[in-house]
Amino acid sequence: MDLNRLQRPVFLVDKAKVLRNVDRMAKKARASGVVLRPHFKTHQSADLAEWIREFGIDKITVSSVDMAEYFAKHGWKDITIAVPVNIHQIPRINSLAKSIELHVIIDSDFTAVRLSEGIANHLNVWIEIDTGDHRTGISADRIEQILDLARILSQAPAFYFKGILTHDGHSYDASGSEEILKLHKKSLVSLQNIKQALETAGCSDFLVSMGDTPSCSVVNSFLPPIDEIRPGNFVFYDIMQKSLGVCRDDDIAVGVACPVISKHLERKELIVYGGSVHVSRESLSLPSGRLFYGQIARLQENQGAWTAPIPDVHLSSLSQEHGKVTGPEDFVRSVQIGDTLIVLPIHACITASLYAEYHVLNDGVLRTLHA
Amino acid sequence: MDLNRLQRPVFLVDKAKVLRNVDRMAKKARASGVVLRPHFKTHQSADLAEWIREFGIDKITVSSVDMAEYFAKHGWKDITIAVPVNIHQIPRINSLAKSIELHVIIDSDFTAVRLSEGIANHLNVWIEIDTGDHRTGISADRIEQILDLARILSQAPAFYFKGILTHDGHSYDASGSEEILKLHKKSLVSLQNIKQALETAGCSDFLVSMGDTPSCSVVNSFLPPIDEIRPGNFVFYDIMQKSLGVCRDDDIAVGVACPVISKHLERKELIVYGGSVHVSRESLSLPSGRLFYGQIARLQENQGAWTAPIPDVHLSSLSQEHGKVTGPEDFVRSVQIGDTLIVLPIHACITASLYAEYHVLNDGVLRTLHA
Repeated sequence: MDLNRLQRPVFLVDKAKVLRNVDRMAKKARASGVVLRPHFKTHQSADLAEWIREFGIDKITVSSVDMAEYFAKHGWKDITIAVPVNIHQIPRINSLAKSIELHVIIDSDFTAVRLSEGIANHLNVWIEIDTGDHRTGISADRIEQILDLARILSQAPAFYFKGILTHDGHSYDASGSEEILKLHKKSLVSLQNIKQALETAGCSDFLVSMGDTPSCSVVNSFLPPIDEIRPGNFVFYDIMQKSLGVCRDDDIAVGVACPVISKHLERKELIVYGGSVHVSRESLSLPSGRLFYGQIARLQENQGAWTAPIPDVHLSSLSQEHGKVTGPEDFVRSVQIGDTLIVLPIHACITASLYAEYHVLNDGVLRTLHA
Repeated sequence: MDLNRLQRPVFLVDKAKVLRNVDRMAKKARASGVVLRPHFKTHQSADLAEWIREFGIDKITVSSVDMAEYFAKHGWKDITIAVPVNIHQIPRINSLAKSIELHVIIDSDFTAVRLSEGIANHLNVWIEIDTGDHRTGISADRIEQILDLARILSQAPAFYFKGILTHDGHSYDASGSEEILKLHKKSLVSLQNIKQALETAGCSDFLVSMGDTPSCSVVNSFLPPIDEIRPGNFVFYDIMQKSLGVCRDDDIAVGVACPVISKHLERKELIVYGGSVHVSRESLSLPSGRLFYGQIARLQENQGAWTAPIPDVHLSSLSQEHGKVTGPEDFVRSVQIGDTLIVLPIHACITASLYAEYHVLNDGVLRTLHA
């Protein structure tokens, strides 16, 4: 494919950057003695997953039963579905648990009881703990409720209380890496308390899993009680992570290549074929308060990579298929109809989910769950 | 499919409402003597398109060459691609123009020259006019530029200057139906001026096309110089249209049915399996300034339809696969894990684009371009 003559928006992956991002996280996990169980919701691609397997990684996280079935079909044998069980999927969970080491998470007695009624095969069940994100999970201060649930799980004949698990999604609201570290330390204290309470109550042989890309990226090492980390986005990174101080421009491994279809120099605007169905409406605020939907880079001459984000150039507005790029007059003047611009996404996981195929720079196509 | 026991989020279509919405617009267009050329980007479904064909509609609008090829394959013979031509797709446009009555739009000499070099088959070319949306199109006050472009088009041997076309996307920023009407009337004046200038310059036998769902919904009739309207969203409508005063709750013909997977009464929150990859991050603001991503309805007892949106209940937060529903304590208390909630989307076109299949209430499945 000639990236200078695009038929339509294309999702690009820079393999060298992905490998570097994975290598960095894998080394840090190994040095701390924790398991890296990366979250594959970020890429949802069995082809890309093979790059990650090369690092000796064989345990993964996903966010749906569909995704678990897809990766199981592609040879992954140890999978955590890190969204509370949908009780209507228990038969499929039971079926998948027969062929792989399957892990699920729950945060209620209600679902625990349904699971115990519907599961006949070996299943690893984790209790989700809310250490501050306030999405799912039992609040970390409700120790009695957590102990009760662990007791229900321990009594179920088929399945196994595997451990406690948290996702510090509130790290995305932090002002920067210092606040992320502070939140992370607070979560460690909460998890340590729960671990001790469980041990005191007679539970043993269970694990502690945590992990979100911001926390996992900024810590130097993973401290007790962490046994396992589950970051996902770090494979790609994006503008949101950069704005949190979690990665550098050069770590961002994906972009949406879009052809320019209209130019309005008088308004300092370019219109690309590339709208909300190609980029997603994930946004961040500029200092002025205005939202933007991506930063803009250009192809390097040799097509081997893209440039750093161009200062003051933003994807400033989205329609279904059109994207408006706003920037300084010099920049707008330098771009012609038919040129290619690279949109560096705000939230790479969501942008990636819009594609059935990714194009690797200079290196073919990766197929995804949606292909 | 049992909508009370959902495996995963499902995009629902209420056929009776769709037919009523189409019937209303078709009657109004007929009464005004204008062509209704509905925008099929809203549904992107050849199956749903057959419902619309029943109203005697045989001209359509789409927003990509891919979509034009898809609907041509499904028997549509008169298609407008209402996004400025991507010059790298000219060979495919030329090829498609051989088999159907194909219309494209342009807003630059640059693209006009490329088209005239690359098109050998009969092609209808429209000049896009910017009557205030400031996305694509030549500004309506640049009469000389429009006349120049019409001249270039008239001299090209293969193709045909078909007319002027506008999309008043800025109607979406209006405060309500009165302001929408005001903007619409202003556009009519602009288009009338351009029409006269073109006629004075010797152009004849060209058409004027306009249309966005807000304007087309609020006017009582379509006045000269309008020959053709191209609304799309009116087939489904959504919370954004309702908030503009353009439709009623009962006109909203689509929703995303999601199973509840977690409940947090103390926070007055429910978590559904249904996140930004199922609903999209299109949003509106509550009076408090907080964003929301959909309103919430429940299934009717007999599964024949859904209820009106429940007051003060909103989809208040989205992750990739989780949605957080916030509402009064009574409501949260009344919902159990495993229950189904219906998310009425902010922007139906974008939500619909996330699905390969739609489920018609009580009536099977519609396949889309993404299937």
